[in-house]
Parts: sequence; structure tokens; C-alpha cells
Amino acid sequence: MLKENTFRTLAEEAISRCRRLATFSEDAGGTRRTFLSPPMRDCHREVSSWMKSLGMNVSLDAAGNLRGLYAGASPGSSRILIGSHLDTVPNAGAFDGILGVVLAVALVKSLDDAKLPFAIEVIGFSEEEGVRFGIPFIGSRALVGRVDEELLGRKDANGISVRKAIENFGLNPNDILKAKLSDDVLGFLEFHIEQGPVLDKLGRPLGIVEAIVGQNRLEFRFSGQANHAGTTPMNLRRDALAAAAEWIVAVEALALRTPGIVATVGFAEAKPGATNVIAGEARAMLDIRHASDHARTEALDELIRQAESIGARRGVTAKWRALLSQNAVAMDPFLTEQIEHAAHKAGCEPHRMASGAGHDAMILAEKVPAAMVFLRTPEGISHDPAESVHLDDVAKALECGHHLLTQLTASQEFLGRTCRA
Amino acid sequence: MLKENTFRTLAEEAISRCRRLATFSEDAGGTRRTFLSPPMRDCHREVSSWMKSLGMNVSLDAAGNLRGLYAGASPGSSRILIGSHLDTVPNAGAFDGILGVVLAVALVKSLDDAKLPFAIEVIGFSEEEGVRFGIPFIGSRALVGRVDEELLGRKDANGISVRKAIENFGLNPNDILKAKLSDDVLGFLEFHIEQGPVLDKLGRPLGIVEAIVGQNRLEFRFSGQANHAGTTPMNLRRDALAAAAEWIVAVEALALRTPGIVATVGFAEAKPGATNVIAGEARAMLDIRHASDHARTEALDELIRQAESIGARRGVTAKWRALLSQNAVAMDPFLTEQIEHAAHKAGCEPHRMASGAGHDAMILAEKVPAAMVFLRTPEGISHDPAESVHLDDVAKALECGHHLLTQLTASQEFLGRTCRA
Repeated sequence: MLKENTFRTLAEEAISRCRRLATFSEDAGGTRRTFLSPPMRDCHREVSSWMKSLGMNVSLDAAGNLRGLYAGASPGSSRILIGSHLDTVPNAGAFDGILGVVLAVALVKSLDDAKLPFAIEVIGFSEEEGVRFGIPFIGSRALVGRVDEELLGRKDANGISVRKAIENFGLNPNDILKAKLSDDVLGFLEFHIEQGPVLDKLGRPLGIVEAIVGQNRLEFRFSGQANHAGTTPMNLRRDALAAAAEWIVAVEALALRTPGIVATVGFAEAKPGATNVIAGEARAMLDIRHASDHARTEALDELIRQAESIGARRGVTAKWRALLSQNAVAMDPFLTEQIEHAAHKAGCEPHRMASGAGHDAMILAEKVPAAMVFLRTPEGISHDPAESVHLDDVAKALECGHHLLTQLTASQEFLGRTCRA
Repeated sequence: MLKENTFRTLAEEAISRCRRLATFSEDAGGTRRTFLSPPMRDCHREVSSWMKSLGMNVSLDAAGNLRGLYAGASPGSSRILIGSHLDTVPNAGAFDGILGVVLAVALVKSLDDAKLPFAIEVIGFSEEEGVRFGIPFIGSRALVGRVDEELLGRKDANGISVRKAIENFGLNPNDILKAKLSDDVLGFLEFHIEQGPVLDKLGRPLGIVEAIVGQNRLEFRFSGQANHAGTTPMNLRRDALAAAAEWIVAVEALALRTPGIVATVGFAEAKPGATNVIAGEARAMLDIRHASDHARTEALDELIRQAESIGARRGVTAKWRALLSQNAVAMDPFLTEQIEHAAHKAGCEPHRMASGAGHDAMILAEKVPAAMVFLRTPEGISHDPAESVHLDDVAKALECGHHLLTQLTASQEFLGRTCRA
């Protein structure tokens, strides 16, 4: 067993490595590293060197995912996947995604050359944020066989397709199917910063994700009657913006009284949008999420009813269209329980929670048992250069991960699993 | 006394003349006639010919106002001004402003060459809508001596100044002071469509304006904390758009319960404005009007307090800045009473009301007793090609105006007035 200050030393190195990777950027002033952009090559070179120093076998698949295999005790060992994504949003912090890859490498390092009854494949996904092509998870989609011709044909702002971007990076898009999960995968483990304030408010270093929430996005359009703001008495108005505002308040109220729901209107617009004209039309975008698909659908139905009844009372029609509908994805209960046990051993009480954001683990869960560990995010600040982690939390995450690997080594239930891929 | 069907015939001609003037436009597809634009020359030529046929002395002042003097019984007669504006908004209807000029000419025609103890100066203001230079009332400002160097220097979208526009039309901007009201003006009378739904809902042809409402315009800015819509629990949010929405509902509620107030939020915007991001900032523009300055100021103070308290409860700061503050302008009580009397004689019960919109009469009222007659606007539709008037209402307005002139002819109170100009 390693000493506690070993995890602290590894955690220091991990944070410093995250900061180093943040310097590989498309932008001079901040971190921006999108799918197979030039700085991704520097990032790969750096991470590869760390992997190789641990005796890992490094490769780049046709979707641009960096993969490092740390062999198991015997040549035919099954494998566990550990990783996250290497791409970033514009003006990014140093830890979102990156930390999960760096911690996977650190976990291998914590083994100190010991071989386990399973291999460990560390993976740095090429694309999760959806910045370059407006569609997220290109990297993890490749592992579950969901990169199709339509996705390969999608173009970025410069008219370069996913296929062409892959070629330009020196990879062969025709090999994309070879990126698929092999049939010896026992599970996928992802460390990720929470990107929210929950753990920070609770004062807990680690969270365990039980499910990634399901989500709907809808556009609501309220149509009333544009009119003169001075000459139209209050009781003769059909004010679309007032209707939208009443509904935005109702959205918030319903979410506040319904446990586990988050519902957000982040965009609203009035037309014609002049100070002295009553709005004839108003648009508002709804984002609603819950770990339970039933609870989410029920809340959404209620919000649609409210939009219609608020509108009806005002002579304003309310129409909506669906932009996204995605069910919740459960994490693997066995792995989740094992993580909880390992966290206890590391001396901390992890908080079981839903992830309000999508992650690569959500995609991998289609094919293999997947689990996620969240690290506390100070003040919940993410997608921002101020994004940070506490050194102690990173050390706890590493210690938890190390205990987990040890536990799995001894688990016949885990080792006996067969892959659904 | 003229027969009732004379007014009907004059009203038919007036409507047909309004429709004719609507064909003089800067745009091929609709009516748009801004300050001293080329079609204004055609408009002047047309209106001048009507005036000249009635023996009126026609001139164009240096602010581009068309003025036709119908002489009084004696050479030194004082004068009454009757008119409105000849400019339009883009995609305009045929009656806003124009009808007031056309009716003034029709009133002179209704005199059938009879001379009154006062002269009548019919005026077609060059600019009321504020379209070309973003500032309204250029025509009527010239009459009260409020066209200064700053206004003359103001430029349109093509970089042409008011001064240059006047020169380009063949007028001399240095003569602008000569456009000022002479000191023999007894009062100003303006016929105008209501541009609102009040008379239409009440089923009354005519309204008498008691006051033009005072008005404030303010920008409110709510600042909270932008955050992830999925990972930020409802109770940890500082949602600027939800705060703005709650306040927009409060604005409407206060206006609904406060007699005579109209309060409108016609513009709202959330930043960053993404579906999956809680708004960190929201802007909303308030327009609030009332015929009583005290009632308006009191309501505005209450709305500012509400913005602050709604914000404070949510951890959102609310700040505001004033964009416009304008007191109410009372119409002349004597003229208003005389109009009411004249309307009764014409067989209709006019509705006493406030004007929610600004008009040239508001500017003229700074210097001379001013009064306004509103004509019912079907469905309240204005600033739109669908803008219309009822023939019967126009006939009633003419009959009312004719009776008014007859009354004033016999009024020592009116004839004994001296001008404040």
C-alpha cells in the first residue's frame, strides 16, 4: 500500500500537468483546443511521453482519441477503460476533461509497475465539448460505433468536414470502425470536475454520479399583438413579452418546488423589441433536466400546459417546438458502490448525485458499465480560466481510484463480466 | 349653416386626398416620406394647389413646414393655426398626421369663402415622427424657436445633417428663426387619429385630448451570475433573466391596478443568451406614461423599488439609467370646452381622454393655447398600411371643427387673447 503523501505528490504532479496542457492552445490569450486542432498534436505528444514512461503502449485511433494500454498480468487480460476528454471550450480552464486523463495516467503510476488481473486502457477523447462542429462527443461516439457518414460530413465554420479534419491530422477516417470498443472491456471509469457548486456548498471533496440527467430543450413562441406603448390601455393589450415573463417565473417556481429538477430559460427575445412598442411576439428557450425521465416528462408537460393557459388568459398564443430530447443514463450500480467503498477507505464520504451535464461516460454507458467520480469545483466555476481544483481533493480522488483498482482486482463479480460491446 | 351632407362630401374628398398623398413615397412598395425627402416636394405641390384654390397665401418656411394663410376679415386679424404633420414612418398608413392637414384645408373650404374675424393658418409640419434624424418634432420645434445649432448639425444614416437637408431642398437654414410663431396667434388646433383602441372600443367617433401624457424611459440592468443550466441547483442560482421576468410581471401588475398608467417593457435581453447557460445579465427597457406627473413619478419610484427588492431577494443587483423624462402637457381648457360644445352640436358625445403619444400640439403648447381632436382609429391600428378611418367619423370631425370656428368667431374671450410667443 502506498503512503498517503504519495497521493499528494501524484496530485501535485497531476495539477501541474493539467496546467502544462492548458498552454497548448489555438488562442494566444487563453486555452482553446478543439477537435484535432494543431495544439492537440502537442497535447498528444506530451501525454504520450507520460504514458510511455510507464511502459504503456500508445496509439491514436482514427477518431483522434489518444489511447495508452497498460498491460495486465497475463497476455489475454480483459481491460478497464479510464479517461476523459482532451478538447476544451474557448477561454477554458485547465481541468475540465483534462484532469480525468491526467488522473488516469497518475493511477497507473500509483501502481508502481504492479500488474493487475486486468489491463488498463487510458483514453484521452478527442472531442467532447462540441465546439468545432456543433455536435459533442465525437471521440466517445467512435468507441460505441456512432460516428456515421452524416457526422463525418458535418462541417466546421471554415467548411472543413470531420472527415477532412481527420485526414488533415494524418489519420484515416476509413479506419473509424477500428476505434470501436473491443469485446474485452470490463467497464469505463471517468474522473471529472463537477462543474457545479453542489460539492463545494456541501464541503465534500468527491461525488459519485448515479445518473446523468435526461434533458429536453424547447423553443416557446408567444404571439400577441404589437401595439403603441402609449396609446394602448393596459386592459386592451395582448403583450407577448409579459406572457413570456409570467411563464419564465412559472418555470422557475415549478423547478424550485420539484426536487431534482433544474429548469432554465437562458434566452428570451421580444419583437419588434422597441422601447415604445408592446411586444407582438416573444421567444424563450427552455432547458429542463432530471435524473428521472418520468419526473422530467411530467414537469415538462406541466410547463407546456402553463404556457398555454398563461397565453389563453391574455389572448396570446403559445406554441413550442422540441429541439432536443434525451433520456437519463444510469451509471453502473456495482462500480458506483465500489467507488463509494473506496472513497470511504480514502477517508472521505462521497456525495451521491446526478450529473446535470452530459459526459463521455454517458456515451460509453450504451455499451459498457460506466461510472463517474466528481471532484469538487471551487465556487462551481468552470468553462472559465478561473476554473480550479483543491490539491487535497485531487489526492483524495487518486487514493479513491487506487483503492478501487485494488478492490476490483479481488472482485470475481467484476472480473467475470462480459462486455456488451 | 352648411348641410350635413356637405360635411360628408368634404369628408369623402379628405379621405381621397389622404390616399393620394400616401402615393408620394420614398419606397416603391409602401408609404415612407421622411423630412424633406424628394416625395415631400410632390406632397407640398399637391397640398399647395388645394390651398391656392381656396385663395390661401402659401409659403414654405425654412424648416420645411408648408403654411397656407387664409386671411381674416380685416388686414390686421390675429390668426388661429390648424394643422398636423406631413411626414410619415416607414410602411405607413395614409392618415397619421396627414389627415390633420387635409382636414384643416377642408375646414377652410367649409367656410365657402366667408371671412372670419381671425385668419386661419393651415400648417403641414415637415417632421414629427423622428425617423430620419432620430429626433422628432423638427417642424413644430421651429415654430417655438427650438431648432438650435445642435439639432441642425444632427446627421441622418447617410451622414447628411439637418442643415444640409434643408439646403438640399432649396431652403435657407439661416432663415430658421423666421419660422417662429408670430405674436398674433390665438391658438393651435390639431386633428389626429387616436392611434389607439380606446374610441373604437367605446364606439365613439371623436375624442378630446385633455393632456398629452408625461413619459419616462429607463433601461434596467439585472446582474446575477452566469452558470451551467445543468449543474447549478435551483436554490444556488442568481438568475438575472428570472429576476427581470419577475419584474416585468410586476410592472404590468402595477400598471393594471393604477388608473391611467400605461407601463410597457417592450425590450428584454439575456446574456450570454444560450439555452444551456443561466443568464448572468438581463436588460429590460421600461416605458411609463401618465397624464399626471405626480402619479407617473410615484409609479416609477415604486417600480424602481420593486426591481431592487426582487433583485435583492435573488442575489441579483438591479441598476437603472434614465433615457427620457418628459412632463405631461395640458391642452388649453377653454379650447377643449369649446370643442366639446361643438361636438355636441355635431351630434356626438366626445370622449375626454389623455393622449398616450406625443404630438405637434405638445410642442406648440409651450407657446400658444393648443387643443386636439382625436378621430376613432378602427381596431387601433396605426403605423401600418391597414391604418384607416370611418367616413362618418371624418364628417363628424369636420362638422365639429366648423361649429368650433363659428363659436370662436363669436367669443370675445378667444378673440381677446394675446399670444405668449
